[in-house]
Amino acid sequence: MSSKMHSYASCGSQIMSRADVLAQHTETPGMLTRTYLSPAHHSAAAQLAEWMCAAGMSVRRDVAGNVIGRYEGLEPNAPALLTGSHFDTVRNAGKHDGNLGILLPLACVAQWHAEGRRFPFAIEIIGFAEEEGVRFKATLLGSRAAAGTFDMAVLDNLDDNGLSMREVMTASGFHPAGLAKAAYDPTQVLAFVEVHIEQGPVLLNEDLALGVVTAISGATRYMVEVEGLAGHAGTSPMGMRRDAAMAAAETGLYIEQRCQDIPGLVGTVGQFNVPNGAANVVPGKAVFSIDIRAEQDAIREQAVADVLAQIERIAARRKVQFKLRKTHEAPSVPCAPWLQQQLAQSIAHCDQRLRYLPSGAGHDAMAMAALCDVAMLFVRCGNGGISHHPDEIMTAEDAALAAQAFSHFVEHFISRREA
Amino acid sequence: MSSKMHSYASCGSQIMSRADVLAQHTETPGMLTRTYLSPAHHSAAAQLAEWMCAAGMSVRRDVAGNVIGRYEGLEPNAPALLTGSHFDTVRNAGKHDGNLGILLPLACVAQWHAEGRRFPFAIEIIGFAEEEGVRFKATLLGSRAAAGTFDMAVLDNLDDNGLSMREVMTASGFHPAGLAKAAYDPTQVLAFVEVHIEQGPVLLNEDLALGVVTAISGATRYMVEVEGLAGHAGTSPMGMRRDAAMAAAETGLYIEQRCQDIPGLVGTVGQFNVPNGAANVVPGKAVFSIDIRAEQDAIREQAVADVLAQIERIAARRKVQFKLRKTHEAPSVPCAPWLQQQLAQSIAHCDQRLRYLPSGAGHDAMAMAALCDVAMLFVRCGNGGISHHPDEIMTAEDAALAAQAFSHFVEHFISRREA
Repeated sequence: MSSKMHSYASCGSQIMSRADVLAQHTETPGMLTRTYLSPAHHSAAAQLAEWMCAAGMSVRRDVAGNVIGRYEGLEPNAPALLTGSHFDTVRNAGKHDGNLGILLPLACVAQWHAEGRRFPFAIEIIGFAEEEGVRFKATLLGSRAAAGTFDMAVLDNLDDNGLSMREVMTASGFHPAGLAKAAYDPTQVLAFVEVHIEQGPVLLNEDLALGVVTAISGATRYMVEVEGLAGHAGTSPMGMRRDAAMAAAETGLYIEQRCQDIPGLVGTVGQFNVPNGAANVVPGKAVFSIDIRAEQDAIREQAVADVLAQIERIAARRKVQFKLRKTHEAPSVPCAPWLQQQLAQSIAHCDQRLRYLPSGAGHDAMAMAALCDVAMLFVRCGNGGISHHPDEIMTAEDAALAAQAFSHFVEHFISRREA
Repeated sequence: MSSKMHSYASCGSQIMSRADVLAQHTETPGMLTRTYLSPAHHSAAAQLAEWMCAAGMSVRRDVAGNVIGRYEGLEPNAPALLTGSHFDTVRNAGKHDGNLGILLPLACVAQWHAEGRRFPFAIEIIGFAEEEGVRFKATLLGSRAAAGTFDMAVLDNLDDNGLSMREVMTASGFHPAGLAKAAYDPTQVLAFVEVHIEQGPVLLNEDLALGVVTAISGATRYMVEVEGLAGHAGTSPMGMRRDAAMAAAETGLYIEQRCQDIPGLVGTVGQFNVPNGAANVVPGKAVFSIDIRAEQDAIREQAVADVLAQIERIAARRKVQFKLRKTHEAPSVPCAPWLQQQLAQSIAHCDQRLRYLPSGAGHDAMAMAALCDVAMLFVRCGNGGISHHPDEIMTAEDAALAAQAFSHFVEHFISRREA
């Protein structure tokens, strides 16, 4: 047992040091930014491939640029248990978001490889090439390709330099037309299990290292433009105003109050701006975003309906116009109970208290759910749970615990076909 | 009477056509922008001087660049009744703001000059060179110079090209050092009466052309920065958030509610921004402005105190920090009751219902109050009262009525010295 503990500690420190190495592959010196098919993205892919080879895996890249390492099972061509996450990043990113979900199983496979240990199934670690959507304003490109749900229309999306995704892929040696049939064969897949930092404060606040994700929350987003009437701040009596900013503020506070105290429901006004606002002008226009998410679709849909109804009332009372544009809608993706159960047993095996929680953030597992049953293991974030930011942190101890739990999960994995 | 009515109609149309001519003096073709000592400002000054001369006035420019026309009284060197307003503009301005207060008395003087009519006092029309504060970020430069309250520190203010006010004045032939003693001799001044568009909707909504200003509201302004904690919109539970934007929204709605239904009190959040806001990020920062004005200082001061107390409560409850910077504070400037009374009689003479109202906007009369008793005659704005905008409008009929009322006021003026 003590040598085993020791080996997970070394997994933990390897995961941390490799996160540092991987963070060197960046477009911008001094901060981590690695967008799809940038030079930093290519070199990070090569680094992952090198580590996969060293762990005894065969490595391939698919037409989307995903880096896939395969650790064969006891028999060749066995169906695979899939794991992995993305290696693209947001701008000025943290170094664990996505990357942990590749580096952690890689550390586990390296141990099994060192021990000569194989399982009745293959293990494939997928480094998804694109999840964040930064460069081409479309998310989950890698996992959608792997799951067979890639939207070919996205190939015409342009980056900030006016290059289309189609052009950029071709120039990088990937074959856009192949995306339509890049998907895994579902009969060769047992499940997809993603390890990811929580990107939130729940585990941290409860002093827990690990959590089992119940579902990836569904989300509805709107961009809202309020049109009122601009006026002089000194000469427009309060009762005659049609203040766009206060209509937006009232909507924001309603969203906040409506989502309060309902487990798994969150509502956010992340953008709020009075264009060309001046201290002495009553705002004639305000622009804001709405983001509502919930573990259960019915709860989200009811919240959205209530917000829209409240907007009607505010518009009528304040004599302003709201123009709403729905920018995103995705249903909740439940994690498979049979996989949740096996993850829970592995966490219990590590003497950790069980915590089930929804994922409010989107993840590759969302897209992979179109292919197979999915599950997610969450690892605690430090710093209040901050993510998408250089202050994103996690500890080597938590990485070791997560590696121990993930190893136990794989070592005791019973596919649903057997169950 | 009918020939007299006719002459006011011609005053009205002259005021409107000269507003169009003056609006041609602009820095930006197609929109009216005329900042202090720009080429457009110089040529507008020359145009005003030409019209003043044609109306039988002697014309001088003082060291601030104010254009002053003097119409002598029955005796030379008699004390003067002062009137006027500013001929600088905001960017993309309306054509009546300020300019009306010069063109209207000019039309009246031209008639008296044509009739050979003089009064026991001189009349001076001041075209104030600077009121809006656009170029050097300091307001009321012309009227402060005339009133003897010019702040010499402002001479070091820079325009957007990095030129100091001192340099620009000197290059234009004006003598900055002279500003310290450019003021009128108070013994030579009877009063200052300013004609101005209302820049608000009060007269328009009550179907009135004219109003008597009771006071120029005092004002307090703050810029506020709220610091909360940024978080992922999907993964930050509502109860754990420290949302800076919602703290700002709550403050804004409190200001709106606190100022509601108290006559003469207005409160505005004209700027509201979440810097680098993203739909999927709980705002860690928000910036907004507060502008609170009231006819009575005690009412404004109590409202400001209540807002600051509410901010304390919001900060404590939401665990966010508010950083407040007071950017402006000016007490209310009352209009002299004896002048209000004479203006009221002139309005009544024009068969108009009397309406007293405060001015929420600042005006040159504010600064002139340091020199002498002041009063203001407001003229209705169309288009919902919009100003500081090309959609600012007024009618020739209202200009004629205002000219009639102003003429009556001057023709029946009894200075306080006599009363």
